[in-house]
Amino acid sequence: MSPKYTMITGASSGIGYETAKAFAARGKNVIVTARRRERLEALQKEIEAIAPTVEVIILEADLASNEETIALYESLATYDIETWVNNAGRGDHGDITAPNLRHSLGMLHLNMDAVAILSSLYVRDYKDNDGAQLINISSIGGYLVVPGATLYCATKFFVSALTEGIDHEMRRGGYKLRAKVLAPASTETEFEQTANELEEPVDYGEKHGRFHTAAEMAQFLLALYDGDKTVGEIDFTTFSIKLSDAKHPHLG
Amino acid sequence: MSPKYTMITGASSGIGYETAKAFAARGKNVIVTARRRERLEALQKEIEAIAPTVEVIILEADLASNEETIALYESLATYDIETWVNNAGRGDHGDITAPNLRHSLGMLHLNMDAVAILSSLYVRDYKDNDGAQLINISSIGGYLVVPGATLYCATKFFVSALTEGIDHEMRRGGYKLRAKVLAPASTETEFEQTANELEEPVDYGEKHGRFHTAAEMAQFLLALYDGDKTVGEIDFTTFSIKLSDAKHPHLG
Repeated sequence: MSPKYTMITGASSGIGYETAKAFAARGKNVIVTARRRERLEALQKEIEAIAPTVEVIILEADLASNEETIALYESLATYDIETWVNNAGRGDHGDITAPNLRHSLGMLHLNMDAVAILSSLYVRDYKDNDGAQLINISSIGGYLVVPGATLYCATKFFVSALTEGIDHEMRRGGYKLRAKVLAPASTETEFEQTANELEEPVDYGEKHGRFHTAAEMAQFLLALYDGDKTVGEIDFTTFSIKLSDAKHPHLG
Repeated sequence: MSPKYTMITGASSGIGYETAKAFAARGKNVIVTARRRERLEALQKEIEAIAPTVEVIILEADLASNEETIALYESLATYDIETWVNNAGRGDHGDITAPNLRHSLGMLHLNMDAVAILSSLYVRDYKDNDGAQLINISSIGGYLVVPGATLYCATKFFVSALTEGIDHEMRRGGYKLRAKVLAPASTETEFEQTANELEEPVDYGEKHGRFHTAAEMAQFLLALYDGDKTVGEIDFTTFSIKLSDAKHPHLG
């Protein structure tokens, strides 16, 4: 039997980093990708300490490039990937009347093109595999348009509609693969700093009051992974994960 | 007073072609763009016959290219554009387990990047203009995930969330510009042929039973334009246009 792997994009920090550790802690081999190799090497060392038998494969790639994204997928042809987590993504907040097109287009390609490419190819190749899961990280903003983050929310509406649609098509077609959406609310990562193009990290307590840590969000992702529901979103009453069926209206 | 213009993308056929004629019939000067110059010249001749005083400006561009899209907008700096209609778009239907990435990525860039670029720049430059309107053509699939058209619907969820979000931000910020979403259902155009990569045109009566002509949809677009609501969608009871406030959940 060939070894199995969990693939995680955007694993150099935040939810991706903690998700890699959480799968590794369960004894899962991980393939991790991001632009910053040194962060992936630090992750590899952390995992060696907590799960010495787990294999960690590092791949450097910039998923804002369609070509690099396709090449990344093709480089994994010999691996058996039981779970694929599209976590890489970023925000682009600020005044909608003063757009920065380069910054915005980079976000569109990272948040949407890369997710579409990697989801499509994973579905093509793993649709009939027992236990195969595609988990795409959307946002509460994939179900709710938030002022100041309109363009970001639009990218996450794309992700949540795409992922729910894939899951509908898998169920209708009798395929084994399940597609799932994680919809975090405010989570303490580099997100706010990047989205607002700031020099310094953001104090999440000050900015959001209530937030989750990336490690907490990784545990919520595992709850989504373990369950048989399509969507895992933050419930603002319990401030914990709520699992549900697909949320966007759909036919069939 | 400088002349005013209505800009329409994807005007070589279908809803865009008929929308250009409908605005021209009201005496509006039009700027029309598409890849196929000869179709735009045929449109120009048709408009000359029905509205001889109307100016028709033709611009050839492929909006699947981000660079061409940005250059197109920049080429219009000297025009006063009172209405901007982002109509260009296409489908990409078929078996989700057999993706054609080149075809899909072309759709993503045309349906989403071009709409994001042109919406952002038009909002930047016309937000304070009396009567300025940004009308983006989404789809019933921008509010409803339809099997067999999952990726297309995801692009239209992006368009509807983006456009509604822009309208919220305009109203919150006290700007004059209004952003509106047209959400057609089945409309007899080249859409089905392109979406399914067929050699021959599709018989809409056979395929869909009930459908609108492109000329009918252009009249629905004018009803949306004339009203003060954000969304114009097909009501399946009356099979006519229904105008409403923004439909996606939103904050603020």
